[in-house]
Amino acid sequence: MNQVILLKQRPVGKPTLNDFTFTNAAIPVPPDGNVLLKTLFVSVDPYLRGRMNNSRSYIPSFETGKPIQSGIIARVIDSKHEGLKKGDVVSGMLEWKEYQVSDGKGLVKVDEKVSPLSTYLGILGMTGMTAYLGLTEIGMPKAGETIVVSGAAGAVGTIVGQIGKIMGCTVVGITGTDEKAEQLRLKFKFDKAINYKTSPDLKEAIRVACPAGVDIYFDNVGGEISDAVLANINKFARLPVCGAISLYNATETPLGPRLQPILLTKSATMRGFIVGDFSAKFPTVIKQLAEWLKEGKLTYSETVVEGFENIPQAFIDLFDGKNEGKMIVKI
Amino acid sequence: MNQVILLKQRPVGKPTLNDFTFTNAAIPVPPDGNVLLKTLFVSVDPYLRGRMNNSRSYIPSFETGKPIQSGIIARVIDSKHEGLKKGDVVSGMLEWKEYQVSDGKGLVKVDEKVSPLSTYLGILGMTGMTAYLGLTEIGMPKAGETIVVSGAAGAVGTIVGQIGKIMGCTVVGITGTDEKAEQLRLKFKFDKAINYKTSPDLKEAIRVACPAGVDIYFDNVGGEISDAVLANINKFARLPVCGAISLYNATETPLGPRLQPILLTKSATMRGFIVGDFSAKFPTVIKQLAEWLKEGKLTYSETVVEGFENIPQAFIDLFDGKNEGKMIVKI
Repeated sequence: MNQVILLKQRPVGKPTLNDFTFTNAAIPVPPDGNVLLKTLFVSVDPYLRGRMNNSRSYIPSFETGKPIQSGIIARVIDSKHEGLKKGDVVSGMLEWKEYQVSDGKGLVKVDEKVSPLSTYLGILGMTGMTAYLGLTEIGMPKAGETIVVSGAAGAVGTIVGQIGKIMGCTVVGITGTDEKAEQLRLKFKFDKAINYKTSPDLKEAIRVACPAGVDIYFDNVGGEISDAVLANINKFARLPVCGAISLYNATETPLGPRLQPILLTKSATMRGFIVGDFSAKFPTVIKQLAEWLKEGKLTYSETVVEGFENIPQAFIDLFDGKNEGKMIVKI
Repeated sequence: MNQVILLKQRPVGKPTLNDFTFTNAAIPVPPDGNVLLKTLFVSVDPYLRGRMNNSRSYIPSFETGKPIQSGIIARVIDSKHEGLKKGDVVSGMLEWKEYQVSDGKGLVKVDEKVSPLSTYLGILGMTGMTAYLGLTEIGMPKAGETIVVSGAAGAVGTIVGQIGKIMGCTVVGITGTDEKAEQLRLKFKFDKAINYKTSPDLKEAIRVACPAGVDIYFDNVGGEISDAVLANINKFARLPVCGAISLYNATETPLGPRLQPILLTKSATMRGFIVGDFSAKFPTVIKQLAEWLKEGKLTYSETVVEGFENIPQAFIDLFDGKNEGKMIVKI
């Protein structure tokens, strides 16, 4: 039996279990030049929500009645491909299926002896590269500057903060529970962490936490949290826009204060990106992240959910901040 | 007699004549090391509105009861300064006074034989440099790309469009009257010009005018016009924010669609600037602009108002778009 998860209908607002459907398929037989893969770990990520809409975006929309796709670690269990042999473990953008065939394109071999397999979806995968490249290419941190990160306890946020510390910056995280705020300070060495849900005046809380102002704002959330940070930016601030999780489930165009006046008076730069914009740098970045991880300069959190059938719920839980660090489903 | 214009009170919303007051002072006598200047031309600019508010901005606020300051061309009529002699003409940030004393700091000698004096406030002054530097440093135009300019018939906009054409781009201007739109096409060689006041669906009008999408949006206005342009930007678009004239007179925080989602899906860069951010490049830019002007590759429009007493009204008229090109008061 081979379970498959299809997009049943496009979510309206926050996704529900009813937007997904399970079906059973036969375990396929790989044709020549292909491998049969068994799924081991599935990455669920906020950006997948965008692909569930029927709108032009940076990557094509998912189609209803078709499988969802995300970052997946899988084992080769049968091979008719000359570069991959039975037992190899690979990482790639694959479908939410227990078993699937691949022609090997876009797959990267990963090594369990070097690092736990799930890290190739997180700190040594797209997540780590997103954090590193957004912070360095757009944020351009200089030692002594102040970085604010929203969605700080998420997969990308925890890594951004640690890289900021490695680069000699003061790092302030914004998150949604006191437990996460404590983790940011204790485990991830953020200088300060703010619980936005218990801050009656977030703008003021950020002002107090950043006495020298905000030089870099790594934005994972958009919305009112970002408004509060923007009120505290310095001249020549840089604002990488990595995600907008607070806006993804909006059913009407979200309104907020117009940004042109603040960008103008501060000569500030706001730039959206996806990690693929910097793909030429992936190999050197992965090497750097692996080195820091080995040296103990980086650590990570994972929220691991077990069971193929729990993938949709794990995805939905992202929007309630139920994850700490990378949300992964172990099959 | 020496007329002086003071800021009487901070404008609320659109400025009125009542926000300014005229007073008479004696014609001062320059102390050693100083010159006495007679004002010849006064530049009135939308950005001065920001300085009339009591808020932190990139330059200090004007104080009530004190003279307004802007770009001025003046003649030296008495000199106790070794670098400036009687009869010299200078450009600088000076006060709205018929006569004033200066220690010479920040003044630049200009030459009527090279170019009409008023051009040193416009195309060969801050206006020209603002257009050139915003477009080249932030917009980074490549031949064949599409540039949209808002406030296109204004002082900066007309120059941005012409430089865009010199650089091999397709240039589309947005303006507020059919006469201005025609000038943009005929005099300034814009490929297309849109009258936003007669376009029931501006977003669609821009889409039709820019079949290849918008690579660079040079934003002078902010507000709903900018929303319509943003709906048409391409992947990796660059958006220099030069001004936000539609928002300067707002009495409450202007709201609009949140920009993070569009910047994110388009990997686009929005960056505010003032010309002073690039001051190291002023000499080479002025040289380039003067060369293009001499070669006939650049032209300009001026709206010249006569009489010192008309400075406040000329300034107010900017917000009704009564100028075409640079608004200047000749004394």
